[in-house]
Amino acid sequence: MHSFDSRDGGGRALLGGKGAELAEMTSLGLPVPPGFTITTEACLKYYRSDQAPPDDLWDQVDEELRGLEAATGRKFGDAANPLLLSVRSGAAVSMPGMMDTILNLGINQAVADGIASRLDDEHFALDLYRRFVQMFANVVMSAPGSLFEATLEDLRRQAGVDSVAGLSMGDMRVAIERFKRIVVDTVGSNVPEEPVTQLRHAIEAVFSSWNTRRAIDYRNFHGIPHDLGTAVNVQAMVFGNMDDDSSTGVLFTRDPSTGDKTLYGEYLVNAQGEDLVAGIATPRNIERMAVENPQMHRQLVETCDALERHYRDAQDVEFTVERGKLYVLQTRAAKRSARAAVKMAVDMAEESLITENEALLRVEPGQISQLLFPRIDAEAKEQAQRDGRLLGTGLGASPGGVTGNVTFTADAAVSLESKGMAVILVRPETTADDIHGVIAAAGLLTSRGGATSHAAVVARGIGKPCVTGAESVNVFPEEGYIECGGVTVKAGDEISIDGATGEIFVGALETIQPQVSEENDMVTLLGWADGAKRLGVRANADYPRDAKVALEYGAEGIGLCRTEHMFFEPSRLALVREAVLGAYFSLRRPDDSAVAEAYRAALAKLEEFQTDDFEQIFLQMDGKPVVIRLLDPPMHEFLPGHAELAAELAETRSSGDASAIRKMEEVHAAIADMREANPMLGLRGCRLGLVYPDIYLMQVRAMMSATQRALSQGIDVGLEIMAPLVSHANELKRLREILEQSIEQFQESADTRIEYKIGAMIEAPRAALTADEIAEFAEFFSCGTNDLTQTTFAMSRDDAEAKFLLRYVEEEILPENPFQVVDRSEVGKLVRMACDLGRKARPGMTIGVCGEHGGDPSSIQLFHEIGLDYVSCSPHRVPVARLAAAQAAIRGADTAA
Amino acid sequence: MHSFDSRDGGGRALLGGKGAELAEMTSLGLPVPPGFTITTEACLKYYRSDQAPPDDLWDQVDEELRGLEAATGRKFGDAANPLLLSVRSGAAVSMPGMMDTILNLGINQAVADGIASRLDDEHFALDLYRRFVQMFANVVMSAPGSLFEATLEDLRRQAGVDSVAGLSMGDMRVAIERFKRIVVDTVGSNVPEEPVTQLRHAIEAVFSSWNTRRAIDYRNFHGIPHDLGTAVNVQAMVFGNMDDDSSTGVLFTRDPSTGDKTLYGEYLVNAQGEDLVAGIATPRNIERMAVENPQMHRQLVETCDALERHYRDAQDVEFTVERGKLYVLQTRAAKRSARAAVKMAVDMAEESLITENEALLRVEPGQISQLLFPRIDAEAKEQAQRDGRLLGTGLGASPGGVTGNVTFTADAAVSLESKGMAVILVRPETTADDIHGVIAAAGLLTSRGGATSHAAVVARGIGKPCVTGAESVNVFPEEGYIECGGVTVKAGDEISIDGATGEIFVGALETIQPQVSEENDMVTLLGWADGAKRLGVRANADYPRDAKVALEYGAEGIGLCRTEHMFFEPSRLALVREAVLGAYFSLRRPDDSAVAEAYRAALAKLEEFQTDDFEQIFLQMDGKPVVIRLLDPPMHEFLPGHAELAAELAETRSSGDASAIRKMEEVHAAIADMREANPMLGLRGCRLGLVYPDIYLMQVRAMMSATQRALSQGIDVGLEIMAPLVSHANELKRLREILEQSIEQFQESADTRIEYKIGAMIEAPRAALTADEIAEFAEFFSCGTNDLTQTTFAMSRDDAEAKFLLRYVEEEILPENPFQVVDRSEVGKLVRMACDLGRKARPGMTIGVCGEHGGDPSSIQLFHEIGLDYVSCSPHRVPVARLAAAQAAIRGADTAA
Repeated sequence: MHSFDSRDGGGRALLGGKGAELAEMTSLGLPVPPGFTITTEACLKYYRSDQAPPDDLWDQVDEELRGLEAATGRKFGDAANPLLLSVRSGAAVSMPGMMDTILNLGINQAVADGIASRLDDEHFALDLYRRFVQMFANVVMSAPGSLFEATLEDLRRQAGVDSVAGLSMGDMRVAIERFKRIVVDTVGSNVPEEPVTQLRHAIEAVFSSWNTRRAIDYRNFHGIPHDLGTAVNVQAMVFGNMDDDSSTGVLFTRDPSTGDKTLYGEYLVNAQGEDLVAGIATPRNIERMAVENPQMHRQLVETCDALERHYRDAQDVEFTVERGKLYVLQTRAAKRSARAAVKMAVDMAEESLITENEALLRVEPGQISQLLFPRIDAEAKEQAQRDGRLLGTGLGASPGGVTGNVTFTADAAVSLESKGMAVILVRPETTADDIHGVIAAAGLLTSRGGATSHAAVVARGIGKPCVTGAESVNVFPEEGYIECGGVTVKAGDEISIDGATGEIFVGALETIQPQVSEENDMVTLLGWADGAKRLGVRANADYPRDAKVALEYGAEGIGLCRTEHMFFEPSRLALVREAVLGAYFSLRRPDDSAVAEAYRAALAKLEEFQTDDFEQIFLQMDGKPVVIRLLDPPMHEFLPGHAELAAELAETRSSGDASAIRKMEEVHAAIADMREANPMLGLRGCRLGLVYPDIYLMQVRAMMSATQRALSQGIDVGLEIMAPLVSHANELKRLREILEQSIEQFQESADTRIEYKIGAMIEAPRAALTADEIAEFAEFFSCGTNDLTQTTFAMSRDDAEAKFLLRYVEEEILPENPFQVVDRSEVGKLVRMACDLGRKARPGMTIGVCGEHGGDPSSIQLFHEIGLDYVSCSPHRVPVARLAAAQAAIRGADTAA
Repeated sequence: MHSFDSRDGGGRALLGGKGAELAEMTSLGLPVPPGFTITTEACLKYYRSDQAPPDDLWDQVDEELRGLEAATGRKFGDAANPLLLSVRSGAAVSMPGMMDTILNLGINQAVADGIASRLDDEHFALDLYRRFVQMFANVVMSAPGSLFEATLEDLRRQAGVDSVAGLSMGDMRVAIERFKRIVVDTVGSNVPEEPVTQLRHAIEAVFSSWNTRRAIDYRNFHGIPHDLGTAVNVQAMVFGNMDDDSSTGVLFTRDPSTGDKTLYGEYLVNAQGEDLVAGIATPRNIERMAVENPQMHRQLVETCDALERHYRDAQDVEFTVERGKLYVLQTRAAKRSARAAVKMAVDMAEESLITENEALLRVEPGQISQLLFPRIDAEAKEQAQRDGRLLGTGLGASPGGVTGNVTFTADAAVSLESKGMAVILVRPETTADDIHGVIAAAGLLTSRGGATSHAAVVARGIGKPCVTGAESVNVFPEEGYIECGGVTVKAGDEISIDGATGEIFVGALETIQPQVSEENDMVTLLGWADGAKRLGVRANADYPRDAKVALEYGAEGIGLCRTEHMFFEPSRLALVREAVLGAYFSLRRPDDSAVAEAYRAALAKLEEFQTDDFEQIFLQMDGKPVVIRLLDPPMHEFLPGHAELAAELAETRSSGDASAIRKMEEVHAAIADMREANPMLGLRGCRLGLVYPDIYLMQVRAMMSATQRALSQGIDVGLEIMAPLVSHANELKRLREILEQSIEQFQESADTRIEYKIGAMIEAPRAALTADEIAEFAEFFSCGTNDLTQTTFAMSRDDAEAKFLLRYVEEEILPENPFQVVDRSEVGKLVRMACDLGRKARPGMTIGVCGEHGGDPSSIQLFHEIGLDYVSCSPHRVPVARLAAAQAAIRGADTAA
């Protein structure tokens, strides 16, 4: 229990974010209505004791209540001078809209009458009472909210008024009576009259709200632990709905979409905060306040400046003006778009509000990748406008351009997305119950709500393009279509949205990939990152075009060039098949010269292709290190599948050509023989090179020739040849002998010396465990954490993700998908072992990591801690990795200091 | 360099087995011709310096030669009084017939003339010279041996004599001249005349013989390291071919086939040792010597007694009698059949020649399993005899009864065996070049050679049934048939051989499994083993009948009952398929009551089956521990394959029944969806139980019901429920919750308490690494080293053994097949980690190992060292494991002492 104005601290873990901020603002002298916080500890006790409130809870609440009465000069439950309360959840980590709030608590008929007579405003008193019954019944007693809405709608229509605020006092009394009846009918009990009972039930409801399905979903998605619990903030009500000099609003101290340094937000006159958050009414832009109520606006600007100076960050502020006096109800670090995060961080560092290192920590690495999201091509957009395909315009609530199929329910969005479809979820407005659909959708469009509506906040948080408040668009979810200016778009039709401008187009529009160099703030930030980080960042690039992108994104080398991807190029596949079958048959018929000749010829042609590819990559990389991995996948991956084979055979058979049929059957038998029960663990990796050395020798010759060509053009080459899937040092030892002999021959015949390294990919547990032995034959290591995760967990990624892994994460059997975020304890232990053992045997050897974890910020943090030399990731993740590496270094230095 | 009579020791590693024995026998005062040994160190130096003899080698040889001349009173190369030498290889580990020997070295025309005149026996001198030229040319100069044989055969036929010994001196001179010409024609140089040159070349040839293909094959098969090198023994010749009071022979001091305490062997009068080993002439049984030459026989008996007393083991002795005087040329521990090994060990312990512990160490654990080899059913044999199917009888050279298809070449044997066929390799005689065929064959039959011929020795060594010297059988390998008394058997036809009696039958005969209880010596030995071992031995048994065999073989419990094997029973498969599809559809259509009902019904029926099975197993095991593993394999393993599905679908389609087709298509889509890219790493193990808990709950209820039934019959039950493929502690935690809840319900409704344990199978590297965390929820562990090997190496057993693993072993990339012999260093490290971490978290917890390594002696040694509680293996391996466990304990105590 912690009063806002007590000076004994408490911290976010105990008080929750909201409670801590309220206490802190109170201590700063900001205008905060008095109140107190029930700590997260009470919530955890509640869950530990099987959802019973802790023994002394109500005594403590009563005590704090007495203090609150003293501070406000009002009395809880006293009809003559009543104290009304707001009761709000507030976890340590912000979960906007996910948990429960009850306002106007402490009211009953007698109290309402008291307020009416005291303020001489029965309308206001009835409005409070109606709001309370509705909210308490819905939130605390779980009565169906739609029935209340329907009742109000009914009354409003009968009365012929625009809004609920326009209802007469008589109608409001009817509403309250009907609400009470609904509660009895649906829940079977009454809304409690007694204020203390109301309060106790409300507090327990907040505790319970921590574990609703939607709250759990939200935490799973955002990776928030489930055992934090929520605090409960009990605060004296202030009333934005008292008169037209009253208002309620939310604002950001800087534009959360662009990052510009200007107040950004909305407010509603004569309303309570819930009206705004629910997106029911369309609020006024905060800029209008400067014109309409300059005095109110001035108070806001001054308060916001004070908040930013104190918190050293942009704030998201909830405020209420009661009869001209401003109250701050809540402040927290502002959620922001990726672009805004980068701009704010860079601006604040340049304003000297924060340091460069702090700026680097202010941007989530994942946001960097959002900045590089595709956006709609400007020309395509102009053309679409000329073609009359602009359907309408809403608020650009979260940037990015996307085309998708219209869908109207969250469930449908999830289902279609799982089938690989890009969908745009279209709703009148979204609520917390739609969260799974928002996550699944490629983009979001709502006809109601502003830049701070649920849809907008969530979409910015997860980096999805979003347009809100497109009021000209009529959405008919039940009927399955939207309509705007006579144009109708049905479920399943394609639309395109621009989350920056708010434009909505009919049909697909071309999107373009932004250039890093155009993102000035990002370039500045990543420049600081490069200065701060210790880890190198390389890219996984298989083609010259990938190498180009990698360099633009700041890669310091290529950490993984998968030669087999070149093999899959359609123009080469026939040749590759010849080579694969040649390898197979030449092993089994060593004396068949026709087989040998065909094999040799296919390899010779492939060698030319590979030489060209490697040369182009070397020219791009200009002396930077390039790790080329020798052929890795099982050979049968290059061969046709069951269906294709059957068709081929049927065709040949119908030809009646006996010799062709025999030959085809022979080939098919070979393909069948090459199939494996568990190809991931079969004849692949360096095993291929040991069984079919000619293929590896061809690849090495191509590397040598390409190097020689690059050198002859005055371009340096940092060639590193990598053997995949080593599990015993002898494999590399033998392979090295074979490769070196061939390289030696090349060098002699070409009369040249070529610098190169030979290294091993560490991706079998046994390789990590024997890294010292392997290091004897390896000049470098690259840890393949994808396969290492598969083998350490005995879990095939494809099978696991399709069949049980997501369920595991959902049911908390695993904390995270270990293919996205490296299993810190065990796979991490093996990587550390590989690193330590390797360097012990070969001091100073270069050790990196390739595979998707190399682009995952939290995995990068671990790789930094382990002391690897570099991470390698897909070119588009390189900027993310640069920032994550910098953050790891800064945090490491902080920890060390 | 080491003279036989020097007293400075040396040891087997340095002197090789033969050299060490010769020195030892010399020191015992046994009649050994003088000589000296060139150490293995010289051989290793030879290989290290690129096959050049060490600098000081020839000087040292010359010096020893002077000593030898002094000891014999003869002079090397002196025609008047020549010293002739034998030069033989001798490695530290016996490799019979695998390396080179040159006899009668030091002879040339002048020396031969000297011998002739000195002994007045030109025939003898020419015989020696002929033998030398032939052997030196073949062994040292690699001239083709068949040309010499053909020359001799030619001369023999022309002269009309029975054997080469019958050739006239003129013919022998012709033979020598023709031999010399053959050498010049085929090799291009002459057999050296100069004795010292002969000696040097012979020594180098012995060095080279260490690395012939057949020697390498032999070492690979027997697991002998390749870096030991061979010693060379240079010894004065004694001549068994001097007259009819001379002879040469080999014998065992006890019967190597039965173990009986009686001299067993063969000798040839007036012959040299090579005549015997090559199996060219059929020798006389050693028993005949007692009659024919009692004085010679008495010398032998006395010498053999002395050898056994000294070496405390049965010996394999080579001897030569020169004009009535016995010389021992070699002695070594006798190779013996499994039966003989057991009998000799038990007899010698009972004779107090050795201790019981020594007796336990004298038997290779693998030999125990040979004792339990199938043998031909006696009644079937009698019937076959009555039917006239007895083809002939040879020598029972290696026990065991087997039926197989006749094949005539080693290559064909290998090829057919790889296709899963049981083959009997039939040869006139075998040579070291046939070794791969002998290994591949199920049995061996030769028409020539005795009980000590190559075929006999090798077959006994590897425990293959073998009949040798079946002289009535005419073998025509080129023509592809054998003939005996007018009956012809072609390649590919079935025959049966009895390696104990030497009988050969046409066609297949029923074989029976011997009963442990009938093997008195084995029962005695295993009784001693149980007293000596610390490791428990359980069996992997899936059916009641397996449990029965396991108990007979001395299992102390069931370490692994694979419930899925019961699922594969044909009578249940249809039901299992219903259950699998039920599980699949009920997960996807939770509200479809028809699906739910079908699923429930299938599970209920399976539960009845499983309850019966478990009950029977419990009744068998009578309170001994029974580890039941919950369902493990990927579900689609129970479903029909591609071909079967296609046929099914085609049939249904042709029926035209639209609803049946739709249903069938739905089922097929489900099956396709269940298929996995890498099923070994997919939805299997405890993941199944977490995704489809109903199946595990059914199994647990069956275990409970079965336990209750057994208890009600007064039978105790040691139920241990095992979750397979745990990789994260949370998996077991969750599963335990689910299972315990169901068990609790069962107990409540049945009003009973049932003792049980829940444990985890440790088979993913991650499980070993986090065994402490898993132990929190596991009352026992069983390490599944099969899968642990697969994941640690990233190597699927099926794929690896078919595609590259044998090559790896052959090329020494891996020392052994890690699926046969556990990878001591790394998989062993993980097992040790599982054991140490598990016991740290849960002191005293039971930890065992199941899987094939549990029956492999060298793996058992490791598991003993690690401190596991038990190994579990297939019932037939239980006796092997008992002995291996005892040996591990004895060795461990020795090491500790």
